[in-house]
Amino acid sequence: MTTRHDALALDADDALAPLRQLFQIPDGLVYLDGNSLGVLPRATATRVAQVVSQEWGEGLIGSWNAAGWMALPQQIGDKIAPLVGVGAGELVVADSTSVNLFKVLSAALALQRAADPARTVVVSERSNFPTDLYIAESLGRQHGCTLHLVDRPEDIPAALGPSTAVLMLTQVNYRNGRLHDMAALSAAAHAAGALTVWDLAHSAGAVPVALAADGADFAVGCGYKYLNGGPGAPAFCWAHPRHASQAWQPLAGWHGHAAPFAFEPGYQPAPGITRYLCGTPPVLAMAALECGVDTLLAARPLGGMAAIRAKSLALTRLFIDLVQQRCGGHGLQFASPDVDAQRGSQVCLAFSADSAAGQAGAAFAVVQALIARRVVGDFRAGDAKDGLPDILRFGVTPLYTRFADVWDAVEQLRQVLETGEWREARFNQRGVVT
Amino acid sequence: MTTRHDALALDADDALAPLRQLFQIPDGLVYLDGNSLGVLPRATATRVAQVVSQEWGEGLIGSWNAAGWMALPQQIGDKIAPLVGVGAGELVVADSTSVNLFKVLSAALALQRAADPARTVVVSERSNFPTDLYIAESLGRQHGCTLHLVDRPEDIPAALGPSTAVLMLTQVNYRNGRLHDMAALSAAAHAAGALTVWDLAHSAGAVPVALAADGADFAVGCGYKYLNGGPGAPAFCWAHPRHASQAWQPLAGWHGHAAPFAFEPGYQPAPGITRYLCGTPPVLAMAALECGVDTLLAARPLGGMAAIRAKSLALTRLFIDLVQQRCGGHGLQFASPDVDAQRGSQVCLAFSADSAAGQAGAAFAVVQALIARRVVGDFRAGDAKDGLPDILRFGVTPLYTRFADVWDAVEQLRQVLETGEWREARFNQRGVVT
Repeated sequence: MTTRHDALALDADDALAPLRQLFQIPDGLVYLDGNSLGVLPRATATRVAQVVSQEWGEGLIGSWNAAGWMALPQQIGDKIAPLVGVGAGELVVADSTSVNLFKVLSAALALQRAADPARTVVVSERSNFPTDLYIAESLGRQHGCTLHLVDRPEDIPAALGPSTAVLMLTQVNYRNGRLHDMAALSAAAHAAGALTVWDLAHSAGAVPVALAADGADFAVGCGYKYLNGGPGAPAFCWAHPRHASQAWQPLAGWHGHAAPFAFEPGYQPAPGITRYLCGTPPVLAMAALECGVDTLLAARPLGGMAAIRAKSLALTRLFIDLVQQRCGGHGLQFASPDVDAQRGSQVCLAFSADSAAGQAGAAFAVVQALIARRVVGDFRAGDAKDGLPDILRFGVTPLYTRFADVWDAVEQLRQVLETGEWREARFNQRGVVT
Repeated sequence: MTTRHDALALDADDALAPLRQLFQIPDGLVYLDGNSLGVLPRATATRVAQVVSQEWGEGLIGSWNAAGWMALPQQIGDKIAPLVGVGAGELVVADSTSVNLFKVLSAALALQRAADPARTVVVSERSNFPTDLYIAESLGRQHGCTLHLVDRPEDIPAALGPSTAVLMLTQVNYRNGRLHDMAALSAAAHAAGALTVWDLAHSAGAVPVALAADGADFAVGCGYKYLNGGPGAPAFCWAHPRHASQAWQPLAGWHGHAAPFAFEPGYQPAPGITRYLCGTPPVLAMAALECGVDTLLAARPLGGMAAIRAKSLALTRLFIDLVQQRCGGHGLQFASPDVDAQRGSQVCLAFSADSAAGQAGAAFAVVQALIARRVVGDFRAGDAKDGLPDILRFGVTPLYTRFADVWDAVEQLRQVLETGEWREARFNQRGVVT
């Protein structure tokens, strides 16, 4: 049996432990929801205040040049690029993940239409994050494409064929934490003549990502999860350099123009990834995102993404072991992979012990009961008709999650289950949840 | 001749003068560029700091509910709604102006395709803000539409006909400050069977806007100009209630879903304007925008938009009169309308005195020389082949612009022209300009 002392010993040996000091984390809170919203870096409040009071307040319009606001999409993009295995100048920060997915999926479909109009199918997972499926569905309505959803990751290769235009996946599945093999799936897609679009929402900053080496064609990612950019932080997008200048993306705004301040009536897309910009970026949010990305870059002298991945796996392995050791008999089932190589930076549990008997909100209630005990994970609703269970989700963020946090979280989970307190009505009040 | 004393007397009589105290304005700066980036409201720094340190830092993921982040798009939208003449629940804040234009123009074109596929033309002005034209051009590529650009506002009605799908205009033209007659043009568009899409970038918060009463169908607007929301503040969009639920907009992200937290694989658009949301909104930027909108609402007890409009016209009239009285003989030409009812909240000057003789950058140099004298207007490049002159642009913002500011600005302009200092090489250095 693993003890809390064992967990403390792991923290004492953790080379990344000092990075936790870069963040402001509420006292006594075990926060395992950095995969929904990363915590606040200590540097952010000061930096945002500087942007507001000095750069905006004093510098006003001149700050687009003098404070370098114009360069932020590329500047922050260049900081994210090494985290996802691409080169400087290949990635820009802009808009939201959904909007960026619309851009890159549109471009990928346009390239395929030009090459082979018979390729009209987008292949994805039924359990992919819904906004990705909605965007693909919407583009399908416009361009006569259809969405082919597979239920199991093992079924993806067989779903690829001569009608496949694009394989669109989230590298780490939001519901079950499954880490896809980007290299193998990209190779399979290319062998079938398809292009790949990867959503890195749950992988950028959480696991080593090697877009270029693993054969990705397009990618998008999220700024407010493992990049710690703040609520609704701008997202990013990348197109392989061999594609970036080959297609228009449809959101042809002035910041993507080759000469935005020439104010020409006709659109001339900028070369490369800059054409994936659209309107004016939200500067306050960009500044906060840059602070967040800097916290990841602070891990570089300590081993960078490889060290982060090693600690992430040690944290989730500890979580799994402790649940197995201490939370048996209540019907919890692991929904995330047990094999390290297949697991992202989260542990997912389906809770269906007695849910058949009028406890459809059981997983939600357990999450609420844990929050009352100052352990923050989150709940993701399932969909009975699609065979998706309700999920308790616990994300670990190696920059600030401690092994002792994992021990404490599982202990609180054990108590919630043993006491049955989650059955109390107050934990079943469903509001808006994120 | 109007004296500075006269200007001071107008300030002394100005009922809106106390509102200037709501803003942090650098000492000694005459800022006539609120139509590019509004100044910083005093409340903003405190509010943004609160969102960063407390709502994000302490409240973390729970703040989506507890701090009301989820409701911000509608909540701020409801504050903007009365400024543009629409009802609560009809307008949302989201994304950038360019992205929102893509949404509403897509929806308008979809409605027209369904009603009459022969309507394939978008009518606009050649001098419309380029990003609007680029978005229309891009949608045209996708849907087989063409863009018909008129050179003079008087030519718009004659350009509308049985092939017109949409009349797309910026209510106040960014280059020449021309205020279009929304009611007359909307009526002409409807008589021709066309729908109207209005960009309110230079009118929301600057002139009274009556979208519903004036027959508009769709509208978008900018948060960082007269709404004082900060650099790159989120934008807004509106669809007339009779249209809002009639079409999908293509950026079908999860925040526009009828039940975003049900995580259903299939898209079901929310009823009404909420379907115009897409991804997760940038909360820090939203909070700053709300502070900016609040500064406009503070004018309500003092007469609201009618009082703002009256002062705006008095300010621009004073600017025009002073230029005529004091800046003759240098070849300045008014590019903005002299008729009050046709003029937005800016005065535009074309400067071509001796520009034929190697002074192609003359207007730019004058703007730079003024900035060196602490008078901030801006420069907008012309386009010789389209007959658009280079422009010096001076915006007035009645919430904080004083009559004495106008007097001082014209006096500095007079000195720049009389001394000829704008011919100095240092004023001709072209960098990125916004």
